[in-house]
Amino acid sequence: MARRSITKAAVTKAGTHVTAEDVARTLGVSQSTISRAFSMTASISDEMKLKVIKAANKLGYQPNVIARSLITRRTNMVAIVMANLVDPFYPVVLDELVQQVQSRGFQTLLFVPSPGQDVDDIMPNLLQYQVDAIVLTSATISSAMARICAARDTPVVSFNRYVPGLQIHAVSSDNIAGARQVADFLVATGHERPAFISGERDATTNRDRRNGFVSRLKQLKMNSCIQEEGGDFSYEAGYAATKRLLRRAGHPDALFFACDVMAIGGIDAARELGISVPEDISIVGYDDVPMAALPSYSLTTIRQPIREMAKAAVDVLDLAEPRGMKSGPTTRMIPGSLITRSSTMNRRAPVRVGKASRR
Amino acid sequence: MARRSITKAAVTKAGTHVTAEDVARTLGVSQSTISRAFSMTASISDEMKLKVIKAANKLGYQPNVIARSLITRRTNMVAIVMANLVDPFYPVVLDELVQQVQSRGFQTLLFVPSPGQDVDDIMPNLLQYQVDAIVLTSATISSAMARICAARDTPVVSFNRYVPGLQIHAVSSDNIAGARQVADFLVATGHERPAFISGERDATTNRDRRNGFVSRLKQLKMNSCIQEEGGDFSYEAGYAATKRLLRRAGHPDALFFACDVMAIGGIDAARELGISVPEDISIVGYDDVPMAALPSYSLTTIRQPIREMAKAAVDVLDLAEPRGMKSGPTTRMIPGSLITRSSTMNRRAPVRVGKASRR
Repeated sequence: MARRSITKAAVTKAGTHVTAEDVARTLGVSQSTISRAFSMTASISDEMKLKVIKAANKLGYQPNVIARSLITRRTNMVAIVMANLVDPFYPVVLDELVQQVQSRGFQTLLFVPSPGQDVDDIMPNLLQYQVDAIVLTSATISSAMARICAARDTPVVSFNRYVPGLQIHAVSSDNIAGARQVADFLVATGHERPAFISGERDATTNRDRRNGFVSRLKQLKMNSCIQEEGGDFSYEAGYAATKRLLRRAGHPDALFFACDVMAIGGIDAARELGISVPEDISIVGYDDVPMAALPSYSLTTIRQPIREMAKAAVDVLDLAEPRGMKSGPTTRMIPGSLITRSSTMNRRAPVRVGKASRR
Repeated sequence: MARRSITKAAVTKAGTHVTAEDVARTLGVSQSTISRAFSMTASISDEMKLKVIKAANKLGYQPNVIARSLITRRTNMVAIVMANLVDPFYPVVLDELVQQVQSRGFQTLLFVPSPGQDVDDIMPNLLQYQVDAIVLTSATISSAMARICAARDTPVVSFNRYVPGLQIHAVSSDNIAGARQVADFLVATGHERPAFISGERDATTNRDRRNGFVSRLKQLKMNSCIQEEGGDFSYEAGYAATKRLLRRAGHPDALFFACDVMAIGGIDAARELGISVPEDISIVGYDDVPMAALPSYSLTTIRQPIREMAKAAVDVLDLAEPRGMKSGPTTRMIPGSLITRSSTMNRRAPVRVGKASRR
């Protein structure tokens, strides 16, 4: 295909010789019907949509959002930066975020930093794509980069963590409230030697879960809470921390882990040491990943409201008017809920709390 | 920011008042240094890259790949269509594909069809973004849509399945060879009543695994292979099919499932029925998802060579020259490897085959 000089006429037709007008004329419908057929959100019957798409394909017509973006200064793309696709929590997050983005007629430009790569390093490349908004999950940017995005009117939202003082939007579940629920539950079910196993020490999720748990235990007059550092949020970290903890004398009767994947490592470690879950020790996680419901683990946990969080992230971005940063960054905290399964038991009345159930 | 009429000058500067030349002049370097700093693949020292990015940020310069695409007719975007993010096989696939795409200086436009939505329906929207290539995973398109993509010179590759006769590239592991390995292994370890549990009946992965298994058993003079339909590739399907199979009299001594997630459902179902794995029954999966290595399952399986497959997918697309479809579609089959763990045992010499090991 011959390259064209970039003129307004070429832009409206870029990539094709056929216009929406041609398709409309062929079908005897209005041009707005054609554009509605190619929008993912506009109201149009399935029958008419199919008719338009078939005619457009036959004629070789394709609307070109890229060319249009030079005029509208919008690409209808949202960048999602996701540093971790391996932890089973994040595929669920990605699925919900993408569905939310697509349901509003936007598309997802996905960035996965290489191991050890700083998100700041990939931002110049990402901003080149003129995305309308950016969602960061398990990743953060510098305040200098946040200022650059603000200057460009590109809203940024941090998902599942926040950085105090950083001028970007944030959405997370209410980790302090969730951890308090775990403390209430463990004390109500007669546990006397609870422990908290940390994930990545400085992540807000980790800090809020630890602080919420420890401070609520104090309020409940339980002043000692054993603490063990996992180092990160992995299965291996939970497994190793549990082995260290349970090999020491006078071990705890309940372990609350900073996330489910660590707790699953903890269950496997306890079993290898011949310690029964929940008879000898109760185990609680956080997230409610799909694996938590498997009968082999049947993990008591706090369910993160991922769908509501994804909706809030996309709402905060205010995609209908992406210049919505003007009023300053917002922080949304959405409450999670306690799901009791058979990795915990009531030590006052020794019958299992909850039943093994698959979701 | 004032909207501009679209002229060549505006295009090269779209979105900013500052040009690469301005940045080059400020730093006293060549313009090609500036463009190398913003490329993800070009050779440039980290120190110089940082210097350029800092200066560019200070001046407010951003290269605009979108504007450039109107001239080059390339967006440096690869669309990945992924119908399933929940099965733990696919996040690993997505991670590898994105890393491969990014390592070549391209970015990923991710499409997740809604449940029940046909990929053909989202293609018009996707093609609007002028992507340089399309990768389909756990999804397929009609031959009419394949012809439209060919006419537009947009290469399409099907990942992990193929549709005979469809004019698109395909990359998968060699499922027939993998299933033959499972047959060889089960016969060599003294199993006499093997069964195959199908996933999605018409998927090429399912068909090739079943046919490879059954035909190799015949070659080995084992003429009976029990077959049970799971219906799809889910945990629930594997669980339900196993319950049905094991409640019938004269049950098998080995179950080969169409994928790992089904096999994990099968292990849980067997245990619920009081049937020990592997003492009473051996269980084999396919994929080697991360969960397969957990001590609670420790599943013998065929490891899919995901990294090699992702590389091949991106190679097939021939991103340096995306008009590479001219020579016709190619099909690459990459061999997997048998990983033996403790869900199987040698019935001739009853000691467990393989040890529980975590990856």
